Amino acid sequence: MHGAATSSELGVYAYAAAQVKKAMEVTHYLGGENYVFWGGREGYQSLLNTDMERELNHLARFMEAAVAYKKKIGFNGTLFIEPKPQEPTKHQYDWDAATAANFLRKYGLIDEFKLNIECNHATLSGHSCHHEVETARINGLLGNIDANSGDPQTGWDTDQFPMDVAEATLVMLSVIKNGGIAPGGFNFDAKLRRESTDVEDIFIAHIAGMDTLARGLRSAAKLIEDGSLNELVRKRYQSFDSEVGQVIEAGKGDFEMLEKKAFEWGEPKVPSAKQVK
Amino acid sequence: MHGAATSSELGVYAYAAAQVKKAMEVTHYLGGENYVFWGGREGYQSLLNTDMERELNHLARFMEAAVAYKKKIGFNGTLFIEPKPQEPTKHQYDWDAATAANFLRKYGLIDEFKLNIECNHATLSGHSCHHEVETARINGLLGNIDANSGDPQTGWDTDQFPMDVAEATLVMLSVIKNGGIAPGGFNFDAKLRRESTDVEDIFIAHIAGMDTLARGLRSAAKLIEDGSLNELVRKRYQSFDSEVGQVIEAGKGDFEMLEKKAFEWGEPKVPSAKQVK
Amino acid sequence: MHGAATSSELGVYAYAAAQVKKAMEVTHYLGGENYVFWGGREGYQSLLNTDMERELNHLARFMEAAVAYKKKIGFNGTLFIEPKPQEPTKHQYDWDAATAANFLRKYGLIDEFKLNIECNHATLSGHSCHHEVETARINGLLGNIDANSGDPQTGWDTDQFPMDVAEATLVMLSVIKNGGIAPGGFNFDAKLRRESTDVEDIFIAHIAGMDTLARGLRSAAKLIEDGSLNELVRKRYQSFDSEVGQVIEAGKGDFEMLEKKAFEWGEPKVPSAKQVK
Amino acid sequence: MHGAATSSELGVYAYAAAQVKKAMEVTHYLGGENYVFWGGREGYQSLLNTDMERELNHLARFMEAAVAYKKKIGFNGTLFIEPKPQEPTKHQYDWDAATAANFLRKYGLIDEFKLNIECNHATLSGHSCHHEVETARINGLLGNIDANSGDPQTGWDTDQFPMDVAEATLVMLSVIKNGGIAPGGFNFDAKLRRESTDVEDIFIAHIAGMDTLARGLRSAAKLIEDGSLNELVRKRYQSFDSEVGQVIEAGKGDFEMLEKKAFEWGEPKVPSAKQVK
Repeated sequence: MHGAATSSELGVYAYAAAQVKKAMEVTHYLGGENYVFWGGREGYQSLLNTDMERELNHLARFMEAAVAYKKKIGFNGTLFIEPKPQEPTKHQYDWDAATAANFLRKYGLIDEFKLNIECNHATLSGHSCHHEVETARINGLLGNIDANSGDPQTGWDTDQFPMDVAEATLVMLSVIKNGGIAPGGFNFDAKLRRESTDVEDIFIAHIAGMDTLARGLRSAAKLIEDGSLNELVRKRYQSFDSEVGQVIEAGKGDFEMLEKKAFEWGEPKVPSAKQVK
Repeated sequence: MHGAATSSELGVYAYAAAQVKKAMEVTHYLGGENYVFWGGREGYQSLLNTDMERELNHLARFMEAAVAYKKKIGFNGTLFIEPKPQEPTKHQYDWDAATAANFLRKYGLIDEFKLNIECNHATLSGHSCHHEVETARINGLLGNIDANSGDPQTGWDTDQFPMDVAEATLVMLSVIKNGGIAPGGFNFDAKLRRESTDVEDIFIAHIAGMDTLARGLRSAAKLIEDGSLNELVRKRYQSFDSEVGQVIEAGKGDFEMLEKKAFEWGEPKVPSAKQVK
Repeated sequence: MHGAATSSELGVYAYAAAQVKKAMEVTHYLGGENYVFWGGREGYQSLLNTDMERELNHLARFMEAAVAYKKKIGFNGTLFIEPKPQEPTKHQYDWDAATAANFLRKYGLIDEFKLNIECNHATLSGHSCHHEVETARINGLLGNIDANSGDPQTGWDTDQFPMDVAEATLVMLSVIKNGGIAPGGFNFDAKLRRESTDVEDIFIAHIAGMDTLARGLRSAAKLIEDGSLNELVRKRYQSFDSEVGQVIEAGKGDFEMLEKKAFEWGEPKVPSAKQVK
Repeated sequence: MHGAATSSELGVYAYAAAQVKKAMEVTHYLGGENYVFWGGREGYQSLLNTDMERELNHLARFMEAAVAYKKKIGFNGTLFIEPKPQEPTKHQYDWDAATAANFLRKYGLIDEFKLNIECNHATLSGHSCHHEVETARINGLLGNIDANSGDPQTGWDTDQFPMDVAEATLVMLSVIKNGGIAPGGFNFDAKLRRESTDVEDIFIAHIAGMDTLARGLRSAAKLIEDGSLNELVRKRYQSFDSEVGQVIEAGKGDFEMLEKKAFEWGEPKVPSAKQVK
């Protein structure tokens, strides 16, 4: 058994479990409040040599064991999965927030984990950062944000500092809707380009990144206080606040009743969503 | 109420329900075996004017009503959701198989639907067709395949006829693993390029598409009969067939036991997955 | 001959020539100052049925004839090629500014045409709009700008109104460097999303688009007046203003001299480009 | 001067020149037949800190010096530029074959260089490998092929071994049209995925890669011998072999004559290119 295990998937599994066990103990000892599973290397290149179902089952067993051990040692911090598509494999198991949510639901882990959304991973998965943050939020999974960015036209993980106030504003809108994200927060998973060779550049980048987030938060607050956007959204969906709308939202809008209403109302016009860009 | 509803999201919802009700009745009357919800236009451009959570709730209520009506009229056909990313909106609600599975699980609809995987939609979502078919399969959702293809370097839905035997072989491997996909099947959601102006081209394309799928099925059968790939996969994961592996797969592999094994076995080597491409 | 030509590439060529001839005459009659060749459909799907060399030769012959006719009728307006990648073919002959420039140089047409850069086409070709505008400028080809934008993560031509002040600022920096772009200018090749159904939305979009460009111009002017960025760039390259640098720029920096200098100077450090994002 | 140059763009330039000088001498001494300029790091992130025009001028001066030194020492090998988009910068100066050709034409270097086309670089630039090889060929620049491949859906340079017979066939068609590519050839710029950990995998990959190219060459030869595709292409363009067509191809097809023909022939039908996929 010994020899076989030293060169086996099982050996890797046990070794990884020992590593996570130790890291979790240290986190607990140091008063850590969160523990992130960065599954950035979990995935496959080809299904010809891969049993994806069995691999996902193993991943779930591993996560269950992590949850059990966390509880056993009294560590009350949040466990995170960090969705990540692309690099090093083409097919990553935690591709995006929805994929990670599906995994957590399938294996009954949805209440034990939250997501750590990284903006650059969001763009690499084909989505905007705001989409990923909001998808995590409405699945009850928004817990932390790796505040970086990547050029949406480049297909590798550049981990640039966040400098786009518009994007920061959108992200902050979801964070506010979520009532904040404590005990998680924002952290810079960011680095400089190779063109930046001065030591001071790393200070400038951190300052500008923080300022960008701060400005985003202030802009989000202003948007909310101003109320125009909220009013636009409220109006767009207000027909669902009507009696019939409420019946539907309560899950009692059957097709017979709806058909009757459709005949009564005639062909509908679509109210403008004012999407002028 | 009347006036308001004629220009409202609610009016659209009721109208759509009436349409689906009628289409489902006709399908049932004609002996149809499947009913596909092609949600190709369900999505949003910007969260500034969109309440994604409420929209997804509405979508779920709609699907619940469809399930109830199906049962009421005695229609036993399979209901399908067809994942589709991109076009016309950037953020589509049925982006890929995992996203659709998450939706179905969240709203308790996982046993009422299957997925209709389209190869061109697969590539537009950043995945291979094989990945999407297999993701559907291991979530118990593989039900039908829109057999087309798109150039993986072009970002819009070209719906080309399937002509790649290698891809067809991979897809057929998953279909065989699934024990077939009846009562669903393969259908050509495909059209010609504008360069093809002869009437006969559409015949040639259908014939070549069917031949491609047939050749793929024969190649898949050969691969399975040959057994080499299965053996490679079996060996890759065989350490999990051991006693310790079985304990893990049964959900009883706790971190303490695994740490003990890791110390016993030492640093593991990773067995080669023979990924030579 | 007649019959053959009515269904032939040659027939298409002659028909297109007649159309362009007429359109050019009308443009001249109406006092038009520019004439844009939007080669958006010029390209191919597969080289198995395409002689790209012959097609490009034909395209060049067509452009030469256009130049000749323009001169013959005394039309002094600028002729433009509008680079465009993607849709309807995968391989477009005017993919981007550099590709169009190569075509013009190869066929001796570089002094007869300028480029009409569209920002959405820029992003579809894998570049930023600023890159395409600047590439046109340094090739002496910047003549007009289709001021729109597209989401850099979507792979089809959405022709959205320009609303990104940061991008507008960058584009305006190149336009200012170019000394303006008259007799060309900016035009909106833009439309609304299908979510926008109010008539007033088209007004709002135009106003916001114009404001975006105006703000971009003001920001660009401020950046230039402030001088910090120019100073950063000047310093980055100032070593080429030295004696040795000037020798190199004059085309007289041979390898022997440079090797001697390299030995004299030792291993160089790279000055920081202050790329903090 | 000394101090300034040790931390300057000029210092880097001189150092690089000394390196290339030495490498070229060694290549010549060892009887090398080719010298490749892999400009994989030549590019920029942002035009705010970059003078692209001056950088391209410097690049041209450098290439001129290389040509001069090659001649001086009697090295008759071919000089290559290897187009490469993406990584580490977003905007690479040798993005694709057309971009490199434009550079060579602009600076009068078109007769001094050929291109080394890498298939993975081709896909990263948004093109197929066949497109890049053929673009090089019709610009008189096809000289060598880095025979690898990358997944067209992944945005970084994976340098996988070529295993796609269909793609190899297409590439070989262009190579045959080019009359071969000696003194260049095919070389494997390829490596394994991290899943491959056996030493033997690297042998298997080389063998499979070579077999793929060999099979591609045989398939290309068969396609040419069979003649069907050539005949399809010949027919597609045969109207240009007519008297009028020859006038056009000779550069004498003016708009007046073409308009006359268009009236004579009427609205043309487009002959089918038989693009059934």
